[in-house]
Amino acid sequence: MAKTFRVGLIGHRFMGRAHSNAWRQAPKFFHLKANVELHTICGRDTAATQSARAQLGWQHATTDWREIVESPLIDIVDICAPPYLHAEMAIAAAKNGKHILCEKVFALNVKEAEAMLAAAQKAKVVHMVCHNYRRTPAIALAKKMISEGALGRIFHFRARYAQDRLADVEFPLDWRLQKETSGSGVHSDINSHIIDLGRYLVGEFKEVCGLLNTFVPERPRAESLAKGQKKMGKVTVPDSAIFMGRMDGGVLANLEATRYAPGRKNHIEIEINGSKGSLYFDFEDMNMLKFYNADDPKDRQGFREINVTARDGVHPYVSNWWPPGHGLGYEHTFVHAIADFVNACAEGKSVQPTFEDGLKNQLVLAAVEESSQKGKWVKL
Amino acid sequence: MAKTFRVGLIGHRFMGRAHSNAWRQAPKFFHLKANVELHTICGRDTAATQSARAQLGWQHATTDWREIVESPLIDIVDICAPPYLHAEMAIAAAKNGKHILCEKVFALNVKEAEAMLAAAQKAKVVHMVCHNYRRTPAIALAKKMISEGALGRIFHFRARYAQDRLADVEFPLDWRLQKETSGSGVHSDINSHIIDLGRYLVGEFKEVCGLLNTFVPERPRAESLAKGQKKMGKVTVPDSAIFMGRMDGGVLANLEATRYAPGRKNHIEIEINGSKGSLYFDFEDMNMLKFYNADDPKDRQGFREINVTARDGVHPYVSNWWPPGHGLGYEHTFVHAIADFVNACAEGKSVQPTFEDGLKNQLVLAAVEESSQKGKWVKL
Amino acid sequence: MAKTFRVGLIGHRFMGRAHSNAWRQAPKFFHLKANVELHTICGRDTAATQSARAQLGWQHATTDWREIVESPLIDIVDICAPPYLHAEMAIAAAKNGKHILCEKVFALNVKEAEAMLAAAQKAKVVHMVCHNYRRTPAIALAKKMISEGALGRIFHFRARYAQDRLADVEFPLDWRLQKETSGSGVHSDINSHIIDLGRYLVGEFKEVCGLLNTFVPERPRAESLAKGQKKMGKVTVPDSAIFMGRMDGGVLANLEATRYAPGRKNHIEIEINGSKGSLYFDFEDMNMLKFYNADDPKDRQGFREINVTARDGVHPYVSNWWPPGHGLGYEHTFVHAIADFVNACAEGKSVQPTFEDGLKNQLVLAAVEESSQKGKWVKL
Amino acid sequence: MAKTFRVGLIGHRFMGRAHSNAWRQAPKFFHLKANVELHTICGRDTAATQSARAQLGWQHATTDWREIVESPLIDIVDICAPPYLHAEMAIAAAKNGKHILCEKVFALNVKEAEAMLAAAQKAKVVHMVCHNYRRTPAIALAKKMISEGALGRIFHFRARYAQDRLADVEFPLDWRLQKETSGSGVHSDINSHIIDLGRYLVGEFKEVCGLLNTFVPERPRAESLAKGQKKMGKVTVPDSAIFMGRMDGGVLANLEATRYAPGRKNHIEIEINGSKGSLYFDFEDMNMLKFYNADDPKDRQGFREINVTARDGVHPYVSNWWPPGHGLGYEHTFVHAIADFVNACAEGKSVQPTFEDGLKNQLVLAAVEESSQKGKWVKL
Repeated sequence: MAKTFRVGLIGHRFMGRAHSNAWRQAPKFFHLKANVELHTICGRDTAATQSARAQLGWQHATTDWREIVESPLIDIVDICAPPYLHAEMAIAAAKNGKHILCEKVFALNVKEAEAMLAAAQKAKVVHMVCHNYRRTPAIALAKKMISEGALGRIFHFRARYAQDRLADVEFPLDWRLQKETSGSGVHSDINSHIIDLGRYLVGEFKEVCGLLNTFVPERPRAESLAKGQKKMGKVTVPDSAIFMGRMDGGVLANLEATRYAPGRKNHIEIEINGSKGSLYFDFEDMNMLKFYNADDPKDRQGFREINVTARDGVHPYVSNWWPPGHGLGYEHTFVHAIADFVNACAEGKSVQPTFEDGLKNQLVLAAVEESSQKGKWVKL
Repeated sequence: MAKTFRVGLIGHRFMGRAHSNAWRQAPKFFHLKANVELHTICGRDTAATQSARAQLGWQHATTDWREIVESPLIDIVDICAPPYLHAEMAIAAAKNGKHILCEKVFALNVKEAEAMLAAAQKAKVVHMVCHNYRRTPAIALAKKMISEGALGRIFHFRARYAQDRLADVEFPLDWRLQKETSGSGVHSDINSHIIDLGRYLVGEFKEVCGLLNTFVPERPRAESLAKGQKKMGKVTVPDSAIFMGRMDGGVLANLEATRYAPGRKNHIEIEINGSKGSLYFDFEDMNMLKFYNADDPKDRQGFREINVTARDGVHPYVSNWWPPGHGLGYEHTFVHAIADFVNACAEGKSVQPTFEDGLKNQLVLAAVEESSQKGKWVKL
Repeated sequence: MAKTFRVGLIGHRFMGRAHSNAWRQAPKFFHLKANVELHTICGRDTAATQSARAQLGWQHATTDWREIVESPLIDIVDICAPPYLHAEMAIAAAKNGKHILCEKVFALNVKEAEAMLAAAQKAKVVHMVCHNYRRTPAIALAKKMISEGALGRIFHFRARYAQDRLADVEFPLDWRLQKETSGSGVHSDINSHIIDLGRYLVGEFKEVCGLLNTFVPERPRAESLAKGQKKMGKVTVPDSAIFMGRMDGGVLANLEATRYAPGRKNHIEIEINGSKGSLYFDFEDMNMLKFYNADDPKDRQGFREINVTARDGVHPYVSNWWPPGHGLGYEHTFVHAIADFVNACAEGKSVQPTFEDGLKNQLVLAAVEESSQKGKWVKL
Repeated sequence: MAKTFRVGLIGHRFMGRAHSNAWRQAPKFFHLKANVELHTICGRDTAATQSARAQLGWQHATTDWREIVESPLIDIVDICAPPYLHAEMAIAAAKNGKHILCEKVFALNVKEAEAMLAAAQKAKVVHMVCHNYRRTPAIALAKKMISEGALGRIFHFRARYAQDRLADVEFPLDWRLQKETSGSGVHSDINSHIIDLGRYLVGEFKEVCGLLNTFVPERPRAESLAKGQKKMGKVTVPDSAIFMGRMDGGVLANLEATRYAPGRKNHIEIEINGSKGSLYFDFEDMNMLKFYNADDPKDRQGFREINVTARDGVHPYVSNWWPPGHGLGYEHTFVHAIADFVNACAEGKSVQPTFEDGLKNQLVLAAVEESSQKGKWVKL
């Protein structure tokens, strides 16, 4: 008889909704090695949390996250709170022996990240950072292909995470634009995703040189806008970021994160070039992976657009869903992450990306910040 | 206090899974005007149906579809059985006063379709054919734009539904390739989808001229393959189909359905040209709609690739899901259909596409068949 | 010492300019087996022809085309006059022993085409129809790949030639819209191109069923517009055309020609599907050929976008131009045609497409016309 | 009566062929304000130069470039020799009062560039650097749109020039890979092109931080390969380069040049993001420009693919060629450059990009080199 994990989820907004969906869907589409119960959801506002409980499919609701991390009824803690709360929550959860799934950005700084990793390791719980994009089928396929040597020696890792909402200078100041709550703005918020993909697909960053920038230093406060006023507040984090780097094996890295690219909605664009071929991915066309194989016959070489929806185990994850060409969406990446996480918890095994990955990501973020402040290269 | 509808689902394979998911998800992502209960699922094989019940989230299971259509506990009957059973089931459901959602292909022939419509109308139940692609956000946006006059006078409706699985001559003979169970093969199976989209977006077909074809007349029987043998059986339906037509207002139609197009996985491609612009859609990139606006300034005219994921009611359905650029997948089209269907049931209103649409579709299918047999044009 | 061919060109507008350029460029980029001299250009208007002579690089000008076909100084006659003059000119040129390059549409009807072919054969001159698109490098590569069996058994030939200028109902009535001068309008004008490509790449048409249509039956006369008036004239030819067909080996054909597709500028789109793969081409991205190879490893199958600009003989024609990725344009197709034609003349060999191809094309055009009139299939 | 310019061309390989073609074609397709005569071509090898003379359409040939710059018969000197010869040739040409068109990379270093500019200014000749890509119609349209304010305040200039020939480690050591002859390898060779486009489209670089890299430090010498041996030689220049920068108005720049990107043949990719929209260009699809207009109605915003081939002056340069959709190729960029250059010479006016642009480009190249050596930012 399979074990049952009772889950406590902290957070009920964007990530809380995406995780709730994944907790509901994973058992429906994957033969998990354990059952899951959506036990308790936690939020700050009583009414909103109760409403979320009903809408998102949880049995209980609370406004005190400590109830979740301390309850003997809970086996897994899923942290979807804003980043500045991650460390405290994760450490408490670890101390209470809970398996932990923690949203990114992992922590506010390296010190927090180290403490979180140490706590999880000491407690011997299963720990995972929710870098969901790793489990986009096309990315998982890219990982497999690179591991099999399809690209040969890798030369370039080039990535850009571009959105457009800040191009409107009237877009309000929210928690993502303030240092206390967000860490380092667009840098920690979305650069962290492509740093993770670089580490996953290619290897570690050895040295970096970065440019953190704020295009619009003041924006109307959200609260004041809600009152029909327009009080300005300071943007205290970068709203755009570029960095170059050298990775394992001499790979050149070029990463950029911005929310000032009109028309780019969730444009996570990656290109990897190696001696035997290239890969290209754009999340806005997430079911496709482009592959150039330099070993194809000379007269018929070209980027192949692989529709990553082949069944029978041919492509990662997709056999659990629909026939070829019946594409998946954004939320599926979370379902895959949670399916793998539950299986790891059931078997007591490690599952990537772990809190160690969270820490390594934080080290890259910090090195880029230091580099930007000092105007020179920083080694990792 | 909202009403609760108890649902009975007949079928648990591909469509049964897609509908089950939609019944579960619709209330989580849409504020429906009624509650739904996944009451009973029906299949032919006891063990498989029980397993489906657990996996897909239903309370009860049965192997007798009459239990579902006759049970006083059931309010809505959702028919996902093979087409040759639709008529009998739908008519029985109507007689028992159930609201009916019926998968396409609607019926085996016009006579059946007429009887189904008559039964539903007489019973005054809500009836809908599940042409799910209508509720792809990009298609719903196309409908809105055309209704607003964005294309002006329409000249061309051009569509192709292409897949590739039959290009392998060893692909086994299944129920879709036999007349008794499928109706008219690829013609009724997938041409019916683009006929529906043509009727939805542009208007009625007035006359047609078609070519139904069978590339591979014999294929190994699935049962014999399962036994390691290779007994051949006759393909008794078209496995490819083309037709031309004239639609309302003199629009020229060109439709093609095939499963012999290597690389095309679920390629529902539509182009509509009018005096003021053009629209282009390909389901393999389902979150995008291309629009050419002949009224743009002359030096900057071009097909726009609209990422149909804008919030705040800007694009149909998507506000209920994720932020811009975080695309949807195949299954969402069913969630939208079921959300609209439930709301219609709650209000006792009609919801497109009705059984009348099912009948009209069947009339087009039949006219193309007649045309192909006679080698000449047939009026509708 | 290489022979020198003196060329006489009849026509100096669009095609005259394109051919003049090709006559000048061919010897600069290809090592031809004969020299060419741009001897005489012919037009109806003295001043315009003189001006064209200077601008386009010809030694002499005349307004009497008979001078060209009869002059003992001329070796090659290149016919770029409107279609209704082709037969008379080509027959006269043949009788005078000139090699003949004739623009398409080859003739006004089958009878003319037969007479042209007979005259050329009797005179034993080299004869070629200028279906320039055959020598787009991507099309020439497609031909080579199909010949090598890259697609296996072919199932579908699907083509569309779409432009948009007639979508404007004020576009004036010109010679292309009148029966006496154009033959059968958009059908002969541009359908003939994709018929030619179908015959070249796939095989002969065995039976066809067509729909010729005129969306806008009256348009302002060009002459009256020039005078600031707006006298209407009748459009006496089809301005849009669709036909289905069966080709050699049971290939299904679907061809469409229209000038009512806003945003489609010179959209010659071709898809060919076979048991082993598919090819896709769009002239608006003319340096690319897409190829799907069903024999690729299962997890990395996809349409490859072949940039058809590889050197060292890898891709047809392009080694004579620039390095990879430095694409060619429209006019290069004519340079390639004329280079091949000159070499054929030098060696007294046949060069495709011959007048026999012109005749076969005309037979398909006529069969589609007959089919459209009678509303039924016509065999070839 | 129009003036006639006699042209002397130094160089007959890749660039010599491209320029020769442009000198021949410009008067055929553009109504120039002066006539041109292809007077003398110069190369180092007598036989090869004579052969080039005949093939490329020049009247005379010489192996002594001084003959060209000193001859009283020559009005315009067109320098297509390797970069290390540019300064000496250009200065001599200026001293002799010739108008000068100089290929890029303009010079080996800033000092040379300064001397070249000073000489040209002192001589009051017309001087132009042949950054041909400026006159790709799509780029010229981008310039016009930006000037008209279509993008609003500009945030990002992002460019990449990627090719793939060096990904093969056996590709031989040629003059482009040696410091004495090439300047700084891929940095000066192709980064200079996108630096130029950045300066043209967006503005000046104010500070830069760069990473110059050599992936493969030794390659077989071309001469030794020709003898069937494989003697290795040192690559003494960067074969890949990335740099970040700040431009006028706080625009963030991200530029990358590499020949290690399999599948990228001549991939000059540019994206510019501003408060009102974005532009995207890729030279491998050179007739297209993508434009996102943030002012479009909310439900129909998307990147438009502008086919930059509209006539009647709508799009730059293309009215002189073919109808819409009949695209241009690589060589046309040179025809446009030479047409504009000849007109400037005829009127004694300045024509962009001048030698001053050449110098400014060189300053950026040098600043990036210095930055890479020092590992920190360098101001301009």
